[in-house]
Amino acid sequence: MPSVHAERNRRGRQRSREGDTMLKLYRFPGATCAAKVLMALAEKSVLFEDICLDRTELATDWYRRLNPAGVVPTVIHDGVVIVESSVILNYIEDRFLGSGTRLRPDEPLLRASMNHWLKLLDDMLPSLGTATYAIAARDRYLALPQAERDAYYDAIPDAYVRQSRRDAIELGLAAPEAARALENLVGLTARVEDSLRDRPFLCGDFSLADISLAPFISRIETLGILASAPERPLFDGWWARVRERPSFITGVEGSTPAPAVAALRAAGTRHAEEIAGLIRVPVAG
Amino acid sequence: MPSVHAERNRRGRQRSREGDTMLKLYRFPGATCAAKVLMALAEKSVLFEDICLDRTELATDWYRRLNPAGVVPTVIHDGVVIVESSVILNYIEDRFLGSGTRLRPDEPLLRASMNHWLKLLDDMLPSLGTATYAIAARDRYLALPQAERDAYYDAIPDAYVRQSRRDAIELGLAAPEAARALENLVGLTARVEDSLRDRPFLCGDFSLADISLAPFISRIETLGILASAPERPLFDGWWARVRERPSFITGVEGSTPAPAVAALRAAGTRHAEEIAGLIRVPVAG
Repeated sequence: MPSVHAERNRRGRQRSREGDTMLKLYRFPGATCAAKVLMALAEKSVLFEDICLDRTELATDWYRRLNPAGVVPTVIHDGVVIVESSVILNYIEDRFLGSGTRLRPDEPLLRASMNHWLKLLDDMLPSLGTATYAIAARDRYLALPQAERDAYYDAIPDAYVRQSRRDAIELGLAAPEAARALENLVGLTARVEDSLRDRPFLCGDFSLADISLAPFISRIETLGILASAPERPLFDGWWARVRERPSFITGVEGSTPAPAVAALRAAGTRHAEEIAGLIRVPVAG
Repeated sequence: MPSVHAERNRRGRQRSREGDTMLKLYRFPGATCAAKVLMALAEKSVLFEDICLDRTELATDWYRRLNPAGVVPTVIHDGVVIVESSVILNYIEDRFLGSGTRLRPDEPLLRASMNHWLKLLDDMLPSLGTATYAIAARDRYLALPQAERDAYYDAIPDAYVRQSRRDAIELGLAAPEAARALENLVGLTARVEDSLRDRPFLCGDFSLADISLAPFISRIETLGILASAPERPLFDGWWARVRERPSFITGVEGSTPAPAVAALRAAGTRHAEEIAGLIRVPVAG
């Protein structure tokens, strides 16, 4: 247990009154998957210890012992480490079932639909990563000397993930998978539209599915990708309903520093024409 | 609904007496993720309609309408299509909760551990694919003329997945990710050993976690990878307990045609020395 480091990094939004039984969340500002967990904790009115890391701490030995992939979020509760946001979301609902908003439907087919959204969005993280790097995050790396950039690439263990990240940074929106990534992300709005024909949220009542999608949509809106999506009135209604929830305001908007949002938005604006050109919108008819 | 094709391909192990309310499973013989679903259905004593496809049918328009990725398993129940084996497994437990074996722990931390196993094994499918292609399945493709092989590669939509598959087939165990894939797979046995210190199955009682792992271990045993794993007595006990379950015998062993098993096993034997050489076993002490 990295108690020393945890103490050092603690920004205790809610200070522990229950000692070790209080849930601890490790995250860093603006991280999509940690934002899901923040939203769920807000919906369930769960007090927790909020431990904000900076990016360099993700690669440290003490953090890798908690989270071998070196990503956020990580949760520790009752002395047990839980990783993977979709696992954490279901844990929060199981553990705090009677508190705050019910976040999972009881009906088995609706529950399967919810779990499918969680899986789909996990599987779409590479597309969100490609889009974020190809449009905006590459600027931070391109400012480094080539040797430092190469060292960053070399530290990515999987050869194909490494090549994908290298392409997104070095080639930007000309990277081999950039167009497909944008289309996948815009395709989410069509899926939402289909799901909402007879319901206000993805699986009926508001659920973990909506929570998992919200930070994705927030990111593609900030990057200027959403502006190239075809008009989708049901999606627009959903997005307005999600954005006005206090859990979205604190968990997603409140967890991303304003300068980071501004940088993403500026990069999106700079590449707006290129983005629109890469998204092949099917002709209606 | 592909009723004509379904009729044509039906090998009805259990014929429907309930019409459309009977669960339909689309699979093909020897498919790892479909074997998980077969095991779960056997544990829950659920009657189902067993629809065996051949590989060419996965790419057809009617099947892609059910399963856009063109993979198995796909389930249809009460007129609703469910894809993704981990989603299907949880659905089966939710829907047939009171029937057969209970396959999910109630305690929230154990349930999180179970969901983590499901996620981990989903994420390890590329490693299993790389190992299977690099050791055995490549032979089938190398027998084709290069133009046909190129057409097969070109049909894979993601550039990095395409390159990974191409490397596994063209380069075999010399492919860039082959060694890491084998180490990931052997690493599963260490994880199992850790999980079993005080329990007979991964999450206490037998659960969906054990079901998800069983076809993986069966495959790496057949490919001769398991033989290079360090000795793990708790793992061995688990594997013996799993293999004697009727659900394993019908769902995993019974779902893979004997000639396919023989071909995988022969390829593993042929490459045994190379496999052992690629797996860096940490020195004890």
